[in-house]
Amino acid sequence: MFLTRSEYDRGVNTFSPEGRLFQVEYAIEAIKLGSTAVGIQTSQGVVLAVEKRVTSPLLVSSSIEKIMEIDSHLGCAMSGLTADSRTMIDHARIEAQNHHFTYNEKIKVESVTQAVCDLALRFGESANGEESVMSRPFGVALLIAGIDEKGPQLFHADPSGTFMQYDAKAIGSGSEGAQTELQEEYHKSLSLQEAETLSLKVLKQVMEEKLNNTNVQLAAVTPEHGFRIYSEDELQAVIDRL
Amino acid sequence: MFLTRSEYDRGVNTFSPEGRLFQVEYAIEAIKLGSTAVGIQTSQGVVLAVEKRVTSPLLVSSSIEKIMEIDSHLGCAMSGLTADSRTMIDHARIEAQNHHFTYNEKIKVESVTQAVCDLALRFGESANGEESVMSRPFGVALLIAGIDEKGPQLFHADPSGTFMQYDAKAIGSGSEGAQTELQEEYHKSLSLQEAETLSLKVLKQVMEEKLNNTNVQLAAVTPEHGFRIYSEDELQAVIDRL
Amino acid sequence: MFLTRSEYDRGVNTFSPEGRLFQVEYAIEAIKLGSTAVGIQTSQGVVLAVEKRVTSPLLVSSSIEKIMEIDSHLGCAMSGLTADSRTMIDHARIEAQNHHFTYNEKIKVESVTQAVCDLALRFGESANGEESVMSRPFGVALLIAGIDEKGPQLFHADPSGTFMQYDAKAIGSGSEGAQTELQEEYHKSLSLQEAETLSLKVLKQVMEEKLNNTNVQLAAVTPEHGFRIYSEDELQAVIDRL
Amino acid sequence: MFLTRSEYDRGVNTFSPEGRLFQVEYAIEAIKLGSTAVGIQTSQGVVLAVEKRVTSPLLVSSSIEKIMEIDSHLGCAMSGLTADSRTMIDHARIEAQNHHFTYNEKIKVESVTQAVCDLALRFGESANGEESVMSRPFGVALLIAGIDEKGPQLFHADPSGTFMQYDAKAIGSGSEGAQTELQEEYHKSLSLQEAETLSLKVLKQVMEEKLNNTNVQLAAVTPEHGFRIYSEDELQAVIDRL
Amino acid sequence: MFLTRSEYDRGVNTFSPEGRLFQVEYAIEAIKLGSTAVGIQTSQGVVLAVEKRVTSPLLVSSSIEKIMEIDSHLGCAMSGLTADSRTMIDHARIEAQNHHFTYNEKIKVESVTQAVCDLALRFGESANGEESVMSRPFGVALLIAGIDEKGPQLFHADPSGTFMQYDAKAIGSGSEGAQTELQEEYHKSLSLQEAETLSLKVLKQVMEEKLNNTNVQLAAVTPEHGFRIYSEDELQAVIDRL
Amino acid sequence: MFLTRSEYDRGVNTFSPEGRLFQVEYAIEAIKLGSTAVGIQTSQGVVLAVEKRVTSPLLVSSSIEKIMEIDSHLGCAMSGLTADSRTMIDHARIEAQNHHFTYNEKIKVESVTQAVCDLALRFGESANGEESVMSRPFGVALLIAGIDEKGPQLFHADPSGTFMQYDAKAIGSGSEGAQTELQEEYHKSLSLQEAETLSLKVLKQVMEEKLNNTNVQLAAVTPEHGFRIYSEDELQAVIDRL
Amino acid sequence: MFLTRSEYDRGVNTFSPEGRLFQVEYAIEAIKLGSTAVGIQTSQGVVLAVEKRVTSPLLVSSSIEKIMEIDSHLGCAMSGLTADSRTMIDHARIEAQNHHFTYNEKIKVESVTQAVCDLALRFGESANGEESVMSRPFGVALLIAGIDEKGPQLFHADPSGTFMQYDAKAIGSGSEGAQTELQEEYHKSLSLQEAETLSLKVLKQVMEEKLNNTNVQLAAVTPEHGFRIYSEDELQAVIDRL
Repeated sequence: MFLTRSEYDRGVNTFSPEGRLFQVEYAIEAIKLGSTAVGIQTSQGVVLAVEKRVTSPLLVSSSIEKIMEIDSHLGCAMSGLTADSRTMIDHARIEAQNHHFTYNEKIKVESVTQAVCDLALRFGESANGEESVMSRPFGVALLIAGIDEKGPQLFHADPSGTFMQYDAKAIGSGSEGAQTELQEEYHKSLSLQEAETLSLKVLKQVMEEKLNNTNVQLAAVTPEHGFRIYSEDELQAVIDRL
Repeated sequence: MFLTRSEYDRGVNTFSPEGRLFQVEYAIEAIKLGSTAVGIQTSQGVVLAVEKRVTSPLLVSSSIEKIMEIDSHLGCAMSGLTADSRTMIDHARIEAQNHHFTYNEKIKVESVTQAVCDLALRFGESANGEESVMSRPFGVALLIAGIDEKGPQLFHADPSGTFMQYDAKAIGSGSEGAQTELQEEYHKSLSLQEAETLSLKVLKQVMEEKLNNTNVQLAAVTPEHGFRIYSEDELQAVIDRL
Repeated sequence: MFLTRSEYDRGVNTFSPEGRLFQVEYAIEAIKLGSTAVGIQTSQGVVLAVEKRVTSPLLVSSSIEKIMEIDSHLGCAMSGLTADSRTMIDHARIEAQNHHFTYNEKIKVESVTQAVCDLALRFGESANGEESVMSRPFGVALLIAGIDEKGPQLFHADPSGTFMQYDAKAIGSGSEGAQTELQEEYHKSLSLQEAETLSLKVLKQVMEEKLNNTNVQLAAVTPEHGFRIYSEDELQAVIDRL
Repeated sequence: MFLTRSEYDRGVNTFSPEGRLFQVEYAIEAIKLGSTAVGIQTSQGVVLAVEKRVTSPLLVSSSIEKIMEIDSHLGCAMSGLTADSRTMIDHARIEAQNHHFTYNEKIKVESVTQAVCDLALRFGESANGEESVMSRPFGVALLIAGIDEKGPQLFHADPSGTFMQYDAKAIGSGSEGAQTELQEEYHKSLSLQEAETLSLKVLKQVMEEKLNNTNVQLAAVTPEHGFRIYSEDELQAVIDRL
Repeated sequence: MFLTRSEYDRGVNTFSPEGRLFQVEYAIEAIKLGSTAVGIQTSQGVVLAVEKRVTSPLLVSSSIEKIMEIDSHLGCAMSGLTADSRTMIDHARIEAQNHHFTYNEKIKVESVTQAVCDLALRFGESANGEESVMSRPFGVALLIAGIDEKGPQLFHADPSGTFMQYDAKAIGSGSEGAQTELQEEYHKSLSLQEAETLSLKVLKQVMEEKLNNTNVQLAAVTPEHGFRIYSEDELQAVIDRL
Repeated sequence: MFLTRSEYDRGVNTFSPEGRLFQVEYAIEAIKLGSTAVGIQTSQGVVLAVEKRVTSPLLVSSSIEKIMEIDSHLGCAMSGLTADSRTMIDHARIEAQNHHFTYNEKIKVESVTQAVCDLALRFGESANGEESVMSRPFGVALLIAGIDEKGPQLFHADPSGTFMQYDAKAIGSGSEGAQTELQEEYHKSLSLQEAETLSLKVLKQVMEEKLNNTNVQLAAVTPEHGFRIYSEDELQAVIDRL
Repeated sequence: MFLTRSEYDRGVNTFSPEGRLFQVEYAIEAIKLGSTAVGIQTSQGVVLAVEKRVTSPLLVSSSIEKIMEIDSHLGCAMSGLTADSRTMIDHARIEAQNHHFTYNEKIKVESVTQAVCDLALRFGESANGEESVMSRPFGVALLIAGIDEKGPQLFHADPSGTFMQYDAKAIGSGSEGAQTELQEEYHKSLSLQEAETLSLKVLKQVMEEKLNNTNVQLAAVTPEHGFRIYSEDELQAVIDRL
């Protein structure tokens, strides 16, 4: 009596008989094609680590940015369609700046995550405000790391506009194996240094190429230094510890 | 002579030959995929209880919010698409604040429910006012609890824009079993404390995981304290009573 | 040479080769799924009676409203999609108030009926005025009862935007049997009291549940009291007379 | 090499390979489902007569209006979708009033007919003026009767936006037999009284029910009285003459 | 490898693989269903003649207008959809008046023809100016006759927006036979009187009914009288000469 | 795994799996149905020659314009849909006049060509400026000839919005044979007179009818006289030289 | 259970079940049909070289521009649809000028690349700003070369809106072989002169025609001269070195 699943999956905003929105689910699939990213929260700060796919020896690996600053206390790692992430992160930056300007305080980690998810939910809408909105779901997931009065926090936002807080979370093509590894290794009393090495250890296991200081990117948000991307030397030091 | 049922079900706003609107019915199906929520009205106040699906041990369960405040005398529990519920609840909060500002009195429980349902009915419309409207039915059901001059009240609002008042009501994936249980156990003279334990007893029977103070959420609206979400300790006390 | 009937019935505003508009016909089917409503006109006033479907013992039956006031001299009973009826009745109320404000007289029963039908006809239009219009036909029929200089009158309005005046009319799932009963029992010299009992007698025969003072609603428009919904006690008195 | 006819007939404004517009032709079919209407022009005035379908004994037959006044010197009879005719006749009335207001003279019969046909042609257009336009052809035909400096005239307007002047014309479900009858009986020297009886004689032959003074409507436009609908008594007198 | 021809022919503005626009070609077919019209240019003026299809003896033949004045020095004959031609001719009249008003001279025959063709080309556009434009090609062809400083001229305009100047041209259902006849009989030194009789002779051969002074219409544009439609008596005189 | 070619070719702006835009390619086919046009650049000026299709002996051949002036130093020959070319050439004229008005110098040949191509590229866009844009590609190719500070130049513009400069170029139904002929006969030191005869010689070989001074059109842009269309006598003189 | 790949590939902005956007992938195919372009970065500057397809001996090869200036310190080579590249490069030029005007400094190479990619991402949007946006992905890839405070840089931008920095990169129909060649020959210490000869050597191997100074184009960005396209003589000198 029902059509097969596939008949419902091209309308960007149509429910299937079981109440599912397939275009959103397919956008989530786009992330499973992306490079792996990992986030780990500790009491000393949050660590973000990503795989970079250097598809050609002539590609300048430092030009691949998978970890980006949102505000001095906020950063994020992405997996999925790179171009889509720019729109989302620009939105996050504007929200963070507007908040700071209006209330003279830093935006909360949860608030900036919610702002990004509200944008994600608005696909298919005719834009009536200051920003253009997509005609399809965003094909990108974000790990948003930051510190506010509640301490260091890690949030995961996906194309459905849903967000959740995690102690540690992996996204992208290697996320399944990486998440299992994180569950085994994670404990509440991890130091930031231990989180650094754990994040690279997890990436190492899911990457096809040998991990080195040009094909991964590492960053942290700490109370002392805020959001900061590691230099190649700092990164090499962590790899050496591994 | 008729097409099979499935030929009519992708047009978001098209009647089938029997006079049915399938996209709205499928949105109602989305709620049957959601976590279970329960509401119980007593003469002393209204209790709301929800199941939280903690899909990973690394997920921070306190970041899952299925019960939300609308106003100091109004709260709601949701089941279905989390992201959709934010739009509806933001709408409810604005309506409540506007009412208070304009008439200097608290909005009635039925009025705020009707405002949410009017929004639900407007999917497919081109937005011409201050708020954007969805291009598909909202995939979320709400249990709205509140107190006004008519006393404690519990309303159920669904994706069709229909609302009804209930003494006790369950929604979500376990709603069928939960509603049967409520009909057997509910009586008009329940105390608020009895309603607290009944709500958790009902959830316990439909949840796959063992109920504890991190995978359920409990709240109440009472004349004394208005809307209030229980702390983990308060929640544990109710579980201990069970 | 022609396509089968079903090929024409999804375009909301497309004629079939026989000159039929199927989406409007299917909206009329939606009413046949609705609860039964009955209207009877007498020289002393007009009576409206509706069945309430109390689908759960925990449902608060007084929160189901199938009969609504339009103005002090005008009321209506509905069958079909509850949420759609709110839009139509809000439109009727605004028209009635505007008329009163502009001409300082009560709007005529036929005028308010025509205003509702004009709205019904406008589905599929892009809204260019103060009110939003539906992208599909309204799935609701109304029995509009009122009194003006022509005396007590009863009108029937359906999704096609057509309206007719009746001495007595039934709509909804039990309308066929109910209309037959009305034709047998109705005569021009019925008193209002006789119309009250006849309306409930007709509902009783088509309802699956036993009729009582919580699963039906009764109202009347009279020269003395205008539009008035009966209290549960007044309703019980009529049931007792039955 | 061509598709079958039916492949072209759902686009509201698409030519078939033979140069036909099927949606307009199907709208003309809608009129063949309608009640029969007859118009006869004489040198003394124009007569309009229509069948009323009194589908229920409880239906108030006087509330069925198939003949309507446009201006004091202009009236029309309709067949097809009642609700569509209201839009067309409102347009005709506004055109007539505007003309009177602007030029201080009565609008010509042909001018008001052309105004109605221009509206009919504009379906599928986005409304950019004071009036909303339909997204499908109007499913209604009109017989427009009036008197101006050229004397009594009868026009026929159909959904294609075409109009023609006739000595005598029948439309609706019985139009074929009625038109044959009119051709046999009509002559230029008919008196108004003879036209009255001829119009009812023609209706009588195509109606399924026995003709009486509640299931037909009769009107005339004369130099003496302008447009006037006959009372039930006047109508009975004509029936008696039959 | 290609689809069959018919797959391309419903998009109003889509090229087929051979570079054809089928909807425009089908609109040209609509004209082949229309009544025949003939135009002949002489050094003394231009003659226009059309067949009238008097489908019923009760139809007032003088109300069928297939030849219309555009300006005092300009007229046209049409074949195809009557209602479409009104839009085109209204456009031509406005262009002619605007030109006269702006430049204080009569518009040239070619200029008014081009204005009509520009309108024809604009179907499918969203109207953004003073006039509404069709959502399909116009189903009408025009023979535009006029006199300006270049002397008497005859232009043919078709649904593709193309126009050409002719010495003599026939359009409509009988155009093929009529054009052959015109090529045999036409010579540059025809007098206006000879053109009158030739035009009727051509029509006579392609008409099914016997030609008389009510089922054809004749007009001429001459330096002496400008555009003028012949009276029934003048028409009879030409028929008598035949 | 791929659909056949034809499935992609109706979307006006959709890529096929091989990265092709079929509607643009089909518009180029429309030009292959058109009459042949030839352009030849010499150091003394540029010659344009076109075939005129005089489909009827009664057609006034001088009313067919396939070569048009853009500015006093610029002209063009067209092949394809005549009506489309009017829009493009009007655009070119306005661009040329605007340039002259703004900068007080004549527009360059390449600049006016690019302006026409930018318009061609904009099909499918919603017009938001002073000019309406087509909903399909333009079905016309242009040979634009002109003289500026770089000397005499010939450009070819096609429906894809691409333009190229040529020494000599043929377009239209006979373009293949004509281009081969041009490649054999063209040399850099051609005089304008030799180019005149070569252009007609080329046309003569691809035309079905015998070439004479009414079925071809000839024009030239020279430093002495700017753009100038040859009179029938001048044209006859060139034919006599042939 | 899934549809075949091809069912998803016509919606310009629809995800396939695997999370892919086929229209963007097909636009990338359009580039594989284009002429080959090569970019090489050295410490002394960046070299750009492109193949020109001179399809006819009468085509003026200097009128084919595949390398274009963006600003005095910025140039780019393109492959794919020529007409699309004009829109992108105009956008880049405006961005560069705006930046210079606003900040009184030259725009960074990465910034101008990102601006072009943001435009690429916006296809399918309704234009709401100063520039019109395409209804399909752009069918063009760019190699953007420039010098800023970070020294000489080469970026590659594709239809998905993604950009990457490369030491050396080839695009277009011969890109696969060319990129392999570049990987073998490229080293960090290449002089600009060596890069000139390498770029032509690479093109030579993938071109069907014999390379000469009219069918390739060469350009460089150096600190001394900024962006500069080589003259035919300079080009010949490089060819002679080969």
